Amino acid sequence: MNTLELNQRAHTLVEPMLASPGDFNAKMVQLAGGTHLLDLGVHAGFGGLEAGRRLAEICLAGLAKVDFVPGDYPATRTSVQVRTDQPRLACLAAQYAGWQIKGENFFGMGSGPMRLKAGKEPVIREMGLTDNSPMAVGVLETSQLPTDEICQKIATDCQVAPEQLFLLAARTASIAGNVQVVARSVETCLHKLHELDFDLTTIASGYGVAPLPPVAADDVVGIGRTNDAILYGASVTLWVRESTDRLQEVGAKLPSNTSAMYGQPFEKILRDAKFDFYQIDPLLFSPAEVCLVSLLDGQTTIVGERNLAVLATSFGQG
Amino acid sequence: MNTLELNQRAHTLVEPMLASPGDFNAKMVQLAGGTHLLDLGVHAGFGGLEAGRRLAEICLAGLAKVDFVPGDYPATRTSVQVRTDQPRLACLAAQYAGWQIKGENFFGMGSGPMRLKAGKEPVIREMGLTDNSPMAVGVLETSQLPTDEICQKIATDCQVAPEQLFLLAARTASIAGNVQVVARSVETCLHKLHELDFDLTTIASGYGVAPLPPVAADDVVGIGRTNDAILYGASVTLWVRESTDRLQEVGAKLPSNTSAMYGQPFEKILRDAKFDFYQIDPLLFSPAEVCLVSLLDGQTTIVGERNLAVLATSFGQG
Amino acid sequence: MNTLELNQRAHTLVEPMLASPGDFNAKMVQLAGGTHLLDLGVHAGFGGLEAGRRLAEICLAGLAKVDFVPGDYPATRTSVQVRTDQPRLACLAAQYAGWQIKGENFFGMGSGPMRLKAGKEPVIREMGLTDNSPMAVGVLETSQLPTDEICQKIATDCQVAPEQLFLLAARTASIAGNVQVVARSVETCLHKLHELDFDLTTIASGYGVAPLPPVAADDVVGIGRTNDAILYGASVTLWVRESTDRLQEVGAKLPSNTSAMYGQPFEKILRDAKFDFYQIDPLLFSPAEVCLVSLLDGQTTIVGERNLAVLATSFGQG
Repeated sequence: MNTLELNQRAHTLVEPMLASPGDFNAKMVQLAGGTHLLDLGVHAGFGGLEAGRRLAEICLAGLAKVDFVPGDYPATRTSVQVRTDQPRLACLAAQYAGWQIKGENFFGMGSGPMRLKAGKEPVIREMGLTDNSPMAVGVLETSQLPTDEICQKIATDCQVAPEQLFLLAARTASIAGNVQVVARSVETCLHKLHELDFDLTTIASGYGVAPLPPVAADDVVGIGRTNDAILYGASVTLWVRESTDRLQEVGAKLPSNTSAMYGQPFEKILRDAKFDFYQIDPLLFSPAEVCLVSLLDGQTTIVGERNLAVLATSFGQG
Repeated sequence: MNTLELNQRAHTLVEPMLASPGDFNAKMVQLAGGTHLLDLGVHAGFGGLEAGRRLAEICLAGLAKVDFVPGDYPATRTSVQVRTDQPRLACLAAQYAGWQIKGENFFGMGSGPMRLKAGKEPVIREMGLTDNSPMAVGVLETSQLPTDEICQKIATDCQVAPEQLFLLAARTASIAGNVQVVARSVETCLHKLHELDFDLTTIASGYGVAPLPPVAADDVVGIGRTNDAILYGASVTLWVRESTDRLQEVGAKLPSNTSAMYGQPFEKILRDAKFDFYQIDPLLFSPAEVCLVSLLDGQTTIVGERNLAVLATSFGQG
Repeated sequence: MNTLELNQRAHTLVEPMLASPGDFNAKMVQLAGGTHLLDLGVHAGFGGLEAGRRLAEICLAGLAKVDFVPGDYPATRTSVQVRTDQPRLACLAAQYAGWQIKGENFFGMGSGPMRLKAGKEPVIREMGLTDNSPMAVGVLETSQLPTDEICQKIATDCQVAPEQLFLLAARTASIAGNVQVVARSVETCLHKLHELDFDLTTIASGYGVAPLPPVAADDVVGIGRTNDAILYGASVTLWVRESTDRLQEVGAKLPSNTSAMYGQPFEKILRDAKFDFYQIDPLLFSPAEVCLVSLLDGQTTIVGERNLAVLATSFGQG
């Protein structure tokens, strides 16, 4: 009964932000077609820590809890903690930023439960899920606000009227955008497991912590740092209905340090790949450290480790 | 005015779980007599971290706050934090698992504020408390669901109609059951102080943190690990209206390391005692480390210390 | 739109405490003039950790989130975390304890958004803010409850009828009073920046953590310890729309260790100054460590450092 209506769940979290955008340093953007668009950090000066925390929970369709906790990494002394008892739905069906939205003079990574209604990605189709919510809710990681035309196209893809589309936008190089990406520690782990053909329905619960990097001055540096926060800084724990034998087998390929591209700050990897994501090893994207608790035999498998040296290079001071 | 109606307080926390059991991976169990029984992890696959967190807060009659925080222990990197400004009521009158419930083919440890209405335990009678709530709320740590007959007996003991009895059940070897036991750091400290004839009405506030062990594959290992999380892993702070002289005196006997049985994983202690709890030193049950802040003279007494070596043996990897 | 009505925001947080004072170990004090006065720890035995946490959030006019988190300092193992995306309003316009309230046999430090309505302090007048809330909400750090006459005078200063004045009082040497002062890590940093003529409107967000000291037995020791928690124990991160050049310039004068009076426990500094605050270097009041994230160039400037040796002297055990 939890598989349905993720957009409706997300919408209940959007409503208080629409009612009081000023409380979140957000700005409602008027669009002719009727789409509800909230700017949480595309334009300088909007958004904040709480806006980012809510952005992350909305992205997770309300099926996870996101909190700030003290961090051991000196650049901000702040970490982002996420936990969920519906990791496959929260992280893959909703949070994964798998929908590239392109238009004239527009590019953004789409995430959130609207992806379920659009059904454009193989990962969504493979899950075989549907969502009967009367509205669609999505998050855009983008440096430009979408035009009305783009929003109308998204609405059409999601099979809702534009006034039933709720979009929240923030660039990576904003306080809120930075937080919402760093809240992807568990999601990144689940996506890597999916890439490794692991059965995600066996994962009962997930918990993750990643250091909040300093907000970057431009989006490329921001993409670098937020990825580094996960690849070199995140610890994730999963509770899994699988044997330790199977978890050790998949664990051997799981953490970021199992990729040949591991070891450089992500910005350098991205520049070396000439910004072509398809040139980057998809198996690089994983948390630094993963603890796999077997619910079948009670043993824990710990793989990978945090790499503070790369964080120091990436985050600057530290 | 806080001494009364603990069951009513707990009930307000049960209601959203009854309304949306699926949100907590829980299952309502239908019983002919009308008792409301929620399975949060007796059967494999039910429950989760949030279910366990709420189970703990219900057990504490809503008089304490339970949270997940980053843990320094590697097996799960997760700790359970609890705090209360009503420690005697929250922990002894409600949370303490002092009611053994037995029946044909059933055994469970009963906790939660229903114990106040049943009044079967010396600790309850000694407190001289009553509860006029029209309902009874309890938590069962058990590997079997209670039958209707057992539930009717519990209702009779609590002097409520079966439809006014609300029970939540989880085995130790479940995600939720594991969390609710590890949320007992402050309770264990209060119970030990009660055993030492310390006046609990002088304790104003309590705060505790204990590492969340990996969920065990069977309940005996689970009982071992959750007890070890407290005995060897928990730090508790109490704010007490007593002099430092008196706190040093009681503190010398307070932490787990003052027991002759200290030093072995609890599972071994339990097996050596042939599963007879009466063969185990009752004074063993206490947190690893206790900080006692005297509200009379402003000094702090710190006793005991965490023992990571025993945790490593008990939790496995680490 | 966030600049107005801070008292109204604070009032929504006061209401549940007025409705159920017993839940917070608080006591409503009846005053002939109609002022709503809540004792959260002027008299021994009132208040607690949650009362202190709410006191802090009320003081911050509901524009910040205050939480307890595990602390690394042994005396209580508890730290107080605060974060806000409206630091200038939350901390300077509301939380700063800048209003000395004196009367016959009464002395208290007034804080909270009522200061905006009274407009007595230069810091308030310089901000040029007004507040059209129909009520005034304030916090008193005091060892005596104010008389009706004092409350009527406060109401007159705030231009509200006495029945529209809501006051919450706790002494420093109480559990709640101790918490509400230690929740001032970000505020202290902002006030120091204001003293250094830094433009506070450039500060987008703030995050701070400070260790909770043991509650002192008398208020002078309490004032000493709570100040030490900030001066020698607090880490604050600010996200600022300023260049790193400018942040390094101001940062060189920012942390507490830039004051000539740095290095002694605050109680000794206070006694050496014969309790005359005007003899104490105003630039001493600042967090131990500050991380300044430039939103313009993405670099971080870290200044100062925590000083556990002074905490050990101040807090006692550790």
